Amino acid sequence: MREKRLSITDIARQLGTSTTTVSFVINGKAREKNISQVLIDRVEHLVSELNYQPNALAKSFRTGKTMTIGFIVDEISQPFFSGIAKYIDEKASAHGYNILFSSTKNSKKRGGEVLQVFNERHVDAFIIALPNGLENEVKEVIGGDVPVVLFDRYISGFESDYVLIDNESSAAEATQHLIDSGYKEIAFVTIETDQSQMLDRTKGYERAIVIAGLNPIVKRINYEGKPESVAEIAAFLQQNNQIDAVVFACNYLSMDGLDAMRQLNLKIGENIAMVSFDDLEVFKYFMPSITAIAQPLEEIADQIMEILMYRLTNNTNKNKIKAVLTTQMEIRDSSQFKKTSDEVQPEALTVGK
Amino acid sequence: MREKRLSITDIARQLGTSTTTVSFVINGKAREKNISQVLIDRVEHLVSELNYQPNALAKSFRTGKTMTIGFIVDEISQPFFSGIAKYIDEKASAHGYNILFSSTKNSKKRGGEVLQVFNERHVDAFIIALPNGLENEVKEVIGGDVPVVLFDRYISGFESDYVLIDNESSAAEATQHLIDSGYKEIAFVTIETDQSQMLDRTKGYERAIVIAGLNPIVKRINYEGKPESVAEIAAFLQQNNQIDAVVFACNYLSMDGLDAMRQLNLKIGENIAMVSFDDLEVFKYFMPSITAIAQPLEEIADQIMEILMYRLTNNTNKNKIKAVLTTQMEIRDSSQFKKTSDEVQPEALTVGK
Repeated sequence: MREKRLSITDIARQLGTSTTTVSFVINGKAREKNISQVLIDRVEHLVSELNYQPNALAKSFRTGKTMTIGFIVDEISQPFFSGIAKYIDEKASAHGYNILFSSTKNSKKRGGEVLQVFNERHVDAFIIALPNGLENEVKEVIGGDVPVVLFDRYISGFESDYVLIDNESSAAEATQHLIDSGYKEIAFVTIETDQSQMLDRTKGYERAIVIAGLNPIVKRINYEGKPESVAEIAAFLQQNNQIDAVVFACNYLSMDGLDAMRQLNLKIGENIAMVSFDDLEVFKYFMPSITAIAQPLEEIADQIMEILMYRLTNNTNKNKIKAVLTTQMEIRDSSQFKKTSDEVQPEALTVGK
Repeated sequence: MREKRLSITDIARQLGTSTTTVSFVINGKAREKNISQVLIDRVEHLVSELNYQPNALAKSFRTGKTMTIGFIVDEISQPFFSGIAKYIDEKASAHGYNILFSSTKNSKKRGGEVLQVFNERHVDAFIIALPNGLENEVKEVIGGDVPVVLFDRYISGFESDYVLIDNESSAAEATQHLIDSGYKEIAFVTIETDQSQMLDRTKGYERAIVIAGLNPIVKRINYEGKPESVAEIAAFLQQNNQIDAVVFACNYLSMDGLDAMRQLNLKIGENIAMVSFDDLEVFKYFMPSITAIAQPLEEIADQIMEILMYRLTNNTNKNKIKAVLTTQMEIRDSSQFKKTSDEVQPEALTVGK
């Protein structure tokens, strides 16, 4: 059972004095500040009568700690980010921290605003999937004092603590799996970007393709939103109808790809194979189920929080930490052995092949 | 470009004085508080030299406003809640508020802890999907002063502002759609609970079934987690193999149902029809695509924020608001017209029918 919610302002109002005077009395500085004994008694009496306990806000003001961590991502509703948020919340709560979140919409402008707002709120630490071009803003905000862990993407030349996954090897492994399953015309669908994680995934794909003596077929989408992206993927698959397998470079591209293939009436696992970079719970229940590279969400959150807690308790060590975690390929039906042409169902031959 | 991050504590430390003295000077109360002119000059000089601007924390302490809204849900990673979070963040940011979130895991104990922590942090308002049995805790926390909007579920007899959807009609509509499509043995899979939204959905299903002169087949799962739930749904579908269609009462049950049907090798749209209460983006891309009741996420967030902003600026009106929004049924392939028995593919007859 809780005490009645009551602020310093309420007490001050009832006594007709200022909040700072009340604060002095509560924090034992009344004498030092020459507050009269009469007023001290009145404050103390009211405080005890109303069962006031100094609140987190007053405590924050005294300690300079807000026990708040700013969590800034592209879009909280994306399953990858809401999955990370779930674990970060669990682990931060266990340490007495709470999570203030906001989405940048992957916009430099909005990202800068969120950084500034969270900085003014004096969050004790930041966890950020950083949009490109905000390196200077982050540097200024951090100012050397506030711990920050970047995740999901590496900013070349930007010194910080990072938690990343091994994007290049993971994409190479996914591609190799399709090669091993007998596919020869394997495309890679990604976005036009200079974000490190996307570039590394492309590199991994290209490495596996070149080693296998196959031709790389890379489609880079200038991502502006869903209908355009779906149309672009559909046009790409139609124009390159030799393609027998696709690796999609992230979960929203996989979704758009599923839509495009549906529109083209391409049957996954029959006319075309696919692997998604990023797993979704539902991929297991698709018919056929979708092979995916699963990022270790809980482990990523664990690493982020471990680094943050280390920095919050021991910020004299200036050596930066870069944790690179491995992924898990979940092999399902969408990438199984390629059927030879007489196994392919007749109606499939008329579409997109 | 931002000023260097600098706290009142830093200034106080540099001048060898207290943070409250610095605060007095910055807030123009130095004379009132008998602070010496020498000290005033030193603070003002340093403040101007270091380009200090009073931060949100100090402002919060003065105004009693934290410009923070506590957002408490069952689990932030559930697509329904992360979708609402996305829009709440957008709309709150536009009003200068930020969102502190935490998940209750639908546990009374954890819910009580989160309420208490957020209360101690003096959030200005609460948005809560309330676990059962926390009515007293919420009442104490709110204490009549802090605006709170409950959403997703109604707590019988608990006075509050609410934003809800019309669960009963929506479930009746989904059931009627299956009846109209020719299904006769329509089951409803829900959880064992006294949460209003789930009870109302069951009522809507039963109403449509009874009016149509069919037999209700309701399965209530004592929900403890995924593998058990999937096994229970699978056993239920096997034991009641006359079932030709299922309405799943929420999105995680739909997922578990998809897993169960997959294990039983039941082909959706061939052996069995389904409708999901709650839509997921991927349901559109399933083969066959999954019919779903879509909750209006953005409209729900809009209503919540409108009520909160009204309460935050005008909390003398004690009449409570209860907004009930309508849903949208997205009819897709999983619920289309029932095939007659000779249209059913032979291998389907051997399993679960």
